[in-house]
Amino acid sequence: MPGKSANHDGFPNSNLERRQDSLSIKRRNLSVEDYVQGILTQDKTILARAITLIESNSQKHLDFAQEVIKQILPKTGNAIRVGISGVPGAGKSTFIEKFGLYLLSLGHKVAVLAIDPTSSVTKGSILGDKTRMELLSREQDCFIRPSPSSGSLGGVTRKTRESILLCEAFGFDVILVETVGVGQNEVTVRDMVDFFLLLQIAGAGDELQGIKKGVIEISDAIVVNKADGDNVSRAKLAQGEYSTALHYLAPSTPGWHSRAFTCSALTGEGLEDVWKIIMKFKEITNNNGCFAKRRNNQIISWVNSMIKEYLISSFYQNKNVKAQMPEIQKNLLSGDITPTNAVDYLLKLYNH
Amino acid sequence: MPGKSANHDGFPNSNLERRQDSLSIKRRNLSVEDYVQGILTQDKTILARAITLIESNSQKHLDFAQEVIKQILPKTGNAIRVGISGVPGAGKSTFIEKFGLYLLSLGHKVAVLAIDPTSSVTKGSILGDKTRMELLSREQDCFIRPSPSSGSLGGVTRKTRESILLCEAFGFDVILVETVGVGQNEVTVRDMVDFFLLLQIAGAGDELQGIKKGVIEISDAIVVNKADGDNVSRAKLAQGEYSTALHYLAPSTPGWHSRAFTCSALTGEGLEDVWKIIMKFKEITNNNGCFAKRRNNQIISWVNSMIKEYLISSFYQNKNVKAQMPEIQKNLLSGDITPTNAVDYLLKLYNH
Repeated sequence: MPGKSANHDGFPNSNLERRQDSLSIKRRNLSVEDYVQGILTQDKTILARAITLIESNSQKHLDFAQEVIKQILPKTGNAIRVGISGVPGAGKSTFIEKFGLYLLSLGHKVAVLAIDPTSSVTKGSILGDKTRMELLSREQDCFIRPSPSSGSLGGVTRKTRESILLCEAFGFDVILVETVGVGQNEVTVRDMVDFFLLLQIAGAGDELQGIKKGVIEISDAIVVNKADGDNVSRAKLAQGEYSTALHYLAPSTPGWHSRAFTCSALTGEGLEDVWKIIMKFKEITNNNGCFAKRRNNQIISWVNSMIKEYLISSFYQNKNVKAQMPEIQKNLLSGDITPTNAVDYLLKLYNH
Repeated sequence: MPGKSANHDGFPNSNLERRQDSLSIKRRNLSVEDYVQGILTQDKTILARAITLIESNSQKHLDFAQEVIKQILPKTGNAIRVGISGVPGAGKSTFIEKFGLYLLSLGHKVAVLAIDPTSSVTKGSILGDKTRMELLSREQDCFIRPSPSSGSLGGVTRKTRESILLCEAFGFDVILVETVGVGQNEVTVRDMVDFFLLLQIAGAGDELQGIKKGVIEISDAIVVNKADGDNVSRAKLAQGEYSTALHYLAPSTPGWHSRAFTCSALTGEGLEDVWKIIMKFKEITNNNGCFAKRRNNQIISWVNSMIKEYLISSFYQNKNVKAQMPEIQKNLLSGDITPTNAVDYLLKLYNH
């Protein structure tokens, strides 16, 4: 049983033992109880299988997974959830590897969940490189899981949120949710984490031109990476520009003043400060009540967004609606029908 | 008949004649044809009544109004639609009055639609002052209409959009859509106009701190008003800060570089430049195709947002859902049920 191979702090004490567990577990189907026990006794193979279950799109697996989630729910919520985003090339992998190793050195247990809702189309940058974070992935107290993204953004959201819960029940106390900085991803991630960190690099002067609307505004900190060697002064300049931009905007988190920093994932310089900032953030938001309030709001808004997604997708997937939509849009743009006519007609098709 | 009292450019040629028309029209119910003819022959009383019809929440009026809209639709789309927003105190009324008078002096016909979705709660600043824009409201070639906002923001959207169409069919070639700068309003207005102008005033130094997230980003121009007397240098400073902020952000309109300006609605200085900017914008976006593309997108997104609003409100207004919601939220926050459980349960209640 997984529980037997746990050492004093609850983590399996050798790769060999874990491998033996994995082999015996893979041979049989697991019950809800097996999953729950496996996770609570920190069996990484079972954690990985539970996440696979969550990621399944079959209704049977969904019901089963929900039962698992329900049972582990009382053990969740104890980690700090940190979103990390940045454009491709910002050095996210190296940053997370070094930052993760630093956190492990402080005695933390770190889970990295990488979400890339675009990967099904673009073969995204997160899953592309299987060898990234090699050092971190070998560590005992670390778990790295890329989230494949078949299905809609809403599906990704549910899967990642539930994966966070599983990792927390397992005992990880720092959850890093990584996403590539394209489009809607950051906002999605912002809504499932406590702290949102935007990773940047010094560019050609106009640092902020290329940033997607709204991303700076949702950041609790901007970290300019690659502040090393010849690049230090450019990184400092970029930091200044980002600080100015942050200063201009309403704070992402009430009572917290978002600022810009520099770091070098290569040399490790600045990583300590990033963690200090996150801890400071946790302290302040715990004291002013924002931490708990945001988490509660996130749960409610998660439910509302799932409902919204269901309602809208059930409308647009409706076969009558789908069949007539092109014609209706054509008539709409040619001015043959009014927008309100179009709505009435479509809703009649749907409610038929 | 309204048509008979039109002068050479199609506008009624005396207040007396218009008053006579109004009296005879008020005595009877109008047919769809009466409305259409009244609007096309530029009878302001009929235009006002048509907007009242649009604003009605009764299904009978809705169907009737849709028939009117449908018939005038071929005559719409020829105005430039300009959204004007700004916090209370920015001098919107004075600006619009002076700007409107300037446009009239150039031979334009100007309709001002003021929307204030918050007014049902706060008695909003737009409807509060009945004497504002007094000079402008007396002008023949101008039409001012505050939009009362009983109903949801989505309802306000439909009503304002349809009012724009009526005003265009009437012959107004500049439509100014005014809103107070609170919350979601600007985004709503941005999605129904061609050009979005944000009116600001010089503040206490940190110009951008107080601005709602995202408002700068959707602006095609920021105009710092009250650049007169002792205030000129502060206004110029504010202009500089806004220019910097705009520089940092992705453009609101592809191919258009949003900039900040100063003006004085009091002295009239700068108003000419504002109009030049809008004309330049129209030229550039017409040439690069953005103008037509945005309008088509606005129609499609209008339909989609009406559908979304209907679907969501029909869910949350459902009596079973409403009755159980508080209990479900309680169980959700206490961890007794998972978010996915909550969604399943709520959707079952709804689909029952």
